[in-house]
Order: sequence, then C-alpha cells, then structure tokens
Amino acid sequence: MAEHDHGATAREYWRSIDARDWDGLRAVLAPDVVYRVPQTGEQAIGPERSVRFNAEYPGDWRLSVTTLVADAEGAATTIDFVDGDEHQTGIALFTFAPDGRIATIDDWWPEPYEPPPGREHLLDRPDA
Amino acid sequence: MAEHDHGATAREYWRSIDARDWDGLRAVLAPDVVYRVPQTGEQAIGPERSVRFNAEYPGDWRLSVTTLVADAEGAATTIDFVDGDEHQTGIALFTFAPDGRIATIDDWWPEPYEPPPGREHLLDRPDA
Repeated sequence: MAEHDHGATAREYWRSIDARDWDGLRAVLAPDVVYRVPQTGEQAIGPERSVRFNAEYPGDWRLSVTTLVADAEGAATTIDFVDGDEHQTGIALFTFAPDGRIATIDDWWPEPYEPPPGREHLLDRPDA
Repeated sequence: MAEHDHGATAREYWRSIDARDWDGLRAVLAPDVVYRVPQTGEQAIGPERSVRFNAEYPGDWRLSVTTLVADAEGAATTIDFVDGDEHQTGIALFTFAPDGRIATIDDWWPEPYEPPPGREHLLDRPDA
C-alpha cells in the first residue's frame, strides 16, 4: 500500500485556493470529492463545483494555514481567512481516497459568541 | 526522543470527561495546560480549573469521539455532544508537552447558520 503525505495534500489544497490556482486545486481533488459545510447542510459533489465555489467566493481575501495535523486517515487544518481588516478562523477536516487525493472536506466557520453566565470563576477572559 | 501516542491521549481526554473520571482527566493534562475557548476568548490555566470546568458543566450530557486525527505535533477531534435530544458538534485541537501530556486545548463549538444567498447554483442543501 502506497503511503501518501496527507498533510502536504491538505496544505496544497489551501495554497492553490489562496493562489487562485484552479488547476492546482483540481489536481488534489478526487473525482468524486464531496465538499461539505456542516453548519449549513450545504454540499458540492465533484471537483468542478468545488473549484467554482472557491473561484466565485466573493471578496479580495487571502488565507494562510495556522494549524495542520495529519495522519494515515485524514487531516485537520485551521486557517486565518483575511478580507481587509476582517479575520475569520476556518477549520477543515479532510479524508483521502486510496490514491492520496482528497475525498471529503468538512469546512467549519465558527463565529464568536458571548459565554453563558456562571462560569467566570472557572474561565478567565483576558482580552474582554 | 520518546514517541507518544497523541491520538490515544486525545481519546483518553474525552473518555475521562464522558465518564466523569476526574483522576483520569488529570493524568493526561500537563501541569501548565491551557484550555481555551477561542470563540469567547475564555481560558483556564492549570489542570484543576480544567477539571472543575468539566465537572461543573451543566446538564446530563454524554459525548463520543466522531473524528480523530493525530501526528507528532498535535491532534484534532470532533465529538458528538448529546444532552437529551440535543446534539452539538465540538471540534478540539490539541498540542502536547514533551512528556506526551496535553499542553493546550482549543475547544470550538460551531453553530448552525443560514447560508448567504447567491450560491445555490454551486452548493446543494439535501436536508433543507
């Protein structure tokens, strides 16, 4: 069984999107890749729809990988997604096809929220 | 350099919390462990506050690990957090001390949201 570098593939996924390198993005996606946004229930099946979704995503954004964990089964990344002064953290979980290309992407976009009351004695909030 | 099984340690973190096994939880936390909730800016430094935060967390909840990725640097998990009929997905990112215990935990709780308009031609929403 061939060994694949899933971490490098996840990194190449984000590099190609940041660079608007759509051929590069196609090259890391399996033919039946499924892109999912679990928080909305949205999905896109196949490389072309994933590519178009990224190509048409509005804004003059850039992104960089801030965390990368990968093993024989999958990979997880956090990214800093920047559009002007706005920063958002994206978290993605990847699984891979036997040939090493990306089989599934779960793309999470957690939003800030106010903590529920009653835990101030346990958790500090240094920047609040 | 000793090799540590970071995936097993991340799994033990969640097993001990689900089992309310606070000695088990203490055993996987480094003395200067930092627990963070990036979406609120909250944090707890040291094992005792992390243990208490979990011990006092309200509800009759259970949790199970649904995704686990780990390598020499860190680990990432998703959990299904269940309280009655309510399911929430938690995503945690771990880093580790040289002795293999958990150094940092970033605990994310993404909420469902409505997708912005204008991308229905690219993303399906099978369950909406």
